Amino acid sequence: MDQRVTDVDRALRARAAAVIPGGMWGHQNAARLPEGYPQYFSRAEGCRTWDSKGREYIDFICGWGPMILGYNDTDVEAAATAQRNRGDAMNGPSERLVELAELVVQTVPHADWAMFSKNGTDATTACVTIARAGTGRRKVLLARGAYHGAIPWCTPSVAGVTEEDRAHLIYFDYNDPASLDTAVEQAKGDLAAIMVSAFKHDLGKEHILPTAEFAERARARADEAGAALIVDDVRAGFRLDMGGSWELVGVRPDLAAWSKAIANGHALAAVTGNDRFREAATKIFTTGSFWTASVSMAAAIATINKLVRTDAIGTMKAMGQRLRDGLDAQAERHGLKLRQSGPVQMPVVLFEDDADRRLGNTFCLNLLERGVYMHPAHTMFLSAAHTKADIDAALQAADESLAAVARL
Amino acid sequence: MDQRVTDVDRALRARAAAVIPGGMWGHQNAARLPEGYPQYFSRAEGCRTWDSKGREYIDFICGWGPMILGYNDTDVEAAATAQRNRGDAMNGPSERLVELAELVVQTVPHADWAMFSKNGTDATTACVTIARAGTGRRKVLLARGAYHGAIPWCTPSVAGVTEEDRAHLIYFDYNDPASLDTAVEQAKGDLAAIMVSAFKHDLGKEHILPTAEFAERARARADEAGAALIVDDVRAGFRLDMGGSWELVGVRPDLAAWSKAIANGHALAAVTGNDRFREAATKIFTTGSFWTASVSMAAAIATINKLVRTDAIGTMKAMGQRLRDGLDAQAERHGLKLRQSGPVQMPVVLFEDDADRRLGNTFCLNLLERGVYMHPAHTMFLSAAHTKADIDAALQAADESLAAVARL
Repeated sequence: MDQRVTDVDRALRARAAAVIPGGMWGHQNAARLPEGYPQYFSRAEGCRTWDSKGREYIDFICGWGPMILGYNDTDVEAAATAQRNRGDAMNGPSERLVELAELVVQTVPHADWAMFSKNGTDATTACVTIARAGTGRRKVLLARGAYHGAIPWCTPSVAGVTEEDRAHLIYFDYNDPASLDTAVEQAKGDLAAIMVSAFKHDLGKEHILPTAEFAERARARADEAGAALIVDDVRAGFRLDMGGSWELVGVRPDLAAWSKAIANGHALAAVTGNDRFREAATKIFTTGSFWTASVSMAAAIATINKLVRTDAIGTMKAMGQRLRDGLDAQAERHGLKLRQSGPVQMPVVLFEDDADRRLGNTFCLNLLERGVYMHPAHTMFLSAAHTKADIDAALQAADESLAAVARL
Repeated sequence: MDQRVTDVDRALRARAAAVIPGGMWGHQNAARLPEGYPQYFSRAEGCRTWDSKGREYIDFICGWGPMILGYNDTDVEAAATAQRNRGDAMNGPSERLVELAELVVQTVPHADWAMFSKNGTDATTACVTIARAGTGRRKVLLARGAYHGAIPWCTPSVAGVTEEDRAHLIYFDYNDPASLDTAVEQAKGDLAAIMVSAFKHDLGKEHILPTAEFAERARARADEAGAALIVDDVRAGFRLDMGGSWELVGVRPDLAAWSKAIANGHALAAVTGNDRFREAATKIFTTGSFWTASVSMAAAIATINKLVRTDAIGTMKAMGQRLRDGLDAQAERHGLKLRQSGPVQMPVVLFEDDADRRLGNTFCLNLLERGVYMHPAHTMFLSAAHTKADIDAALQAADESLAAVARL
């Protein structure tokens, strides 16, 4: 194991290996990162996190998205604590549920209603189920390579998945209207839904915003077929536009899936929908033991209100632009070619001619040593807690890290 | 709407009707209860809960299971708060993950390992996926009428569900070894798993513990076929036996699903498994944005330790028995025939000859008016916070409520 992994992290991994399959499951398994990344974390505050040995990092993953106002945000936690003292998971919802649903409907133009759950996968799965219930049809169109969750119908793995789990999925290429048309043709009279990510954010690839042409075609094809247009806004929700990410291209979905940042790190997910699918949403049966728990809802109300009040998206864009511009200027000085893409507040930073990620991994491992946590392949996340000073400190570390890449 | 529904509850329902499909989704929708039950709750503490108008109830639903030590338990919340001040959803787990997995493995005899998620459905779904990944087979045997979650493969509804979602499910009757044998036959060489609830706890029906014969048959058939025996312990976990509910019949599953009570109301679920399925568990890809969040894990550690330290199961059994004996004696005095069933700490109280639930509903609505929250058809839950005084107060209300039933 890499020298950078501390004795504390190593000891925890050894203990975990005995009692957790493979030592860790899912997207947070450090084995998916270059050797040298910490697996365990001991603390998080603002835009900073600390690994299990207490080494501090300026964090550009933000808990893989949930942290949007800063870890342990004062306003969000005050609202959460106030609700916690009253009640969390009870025999039914508290008034917070109604307040949150009203706030979401007021904030998100396509939303006539909202429902809440815990995981992004809960929300994407409910969207598909509602679309099928509402249309009485089965086929769901998805973009090739898009991530929509981690249960058999959508997980990127095939282990334990049966052919039937994906019997009614048809694939198209994101941002390719002709490919979408072909997929719609294939579905014939059985089209229930077209599901799209907010933007193309496939792992390890350049991130690409939807074109207006593609978005409008998706809307038109769904309308012609009487099918649902579903935007999976789990990753991007409230980072690009408070009204939902496709507001950027002026296209409104019938249904959208939300999670990650909507309660600043408290476990919550949501489905929003329009009146065309309200009746269908009443017909399906989906639920969970903690889906009306009030603390996460109080946190979401505080999060949404603060995001709006402080123009958090404006802050994230400004800080993301500052980071992107800085990195571009540095790369040029070092004679390196970066491929920065995605919205500046949700960037992915790749290197030209780096199929084996040798350059990207070297960059990121050097950043880590200098107290900056970035990811060599996955969407990163800015937060409203990142200040100019944080960005500039990260850029200082980046300059040294790019120098190390240039020396390869 | 019933007179018992308060103006506050009615106003909240009216607001909700505008922004939530059907006013509420899932098992907590008060429309599933007799008219007169409150939909909204404002507070919970110990074994008491308060509706949105501030009316107090001794609670025998316990948040539909999650509350096991008492709402807002001092020890659990102290542990949760201490962790919250360090970090919750971060870029990876904290040390709490390892401590919790070790504690679960130490507490649950069949468990060589554990993985964590958020919903009971996450855990049951992961069990099925792991079983399929480990066996390379597809068929999953389930008891007719059993509830295992609320996504298309398992939800009790058919709205939005395709035939393929359930293509590989085969049904048997709980506690009927011959029926299980027939189902195993049907699966031929394609048997991946036999999944059973901890006990038969179907809605509106008498609750029945597994017979040793049935449990042993299930174990034997799984072994013969090289398939997984899965116990769905989501509802019963840590209320019957700290080692898993089938310890009661001396049969150990290969995989088990847990949620509800394991963190005393904090959103958490778990899969436990033995070494036969460790490799399969590493192969599947299942994950969620909040699945390593540390606050719920700190809460689970405190919950499990306190459950063991205080013999909470012993308390729940004693209090459940006191309630059952009291109700039986009262019913006899009132000339009523009750059908009390299930483990005393997870009872369901039905009336003889009450197909339309007129007697049961009258009983429960009278209890509600007298400050006791029971359910006329669903599994109820005792907690370790229920004292003799609480049970006796509930019995006082029950005596008056049974008198009302006797007057029908």
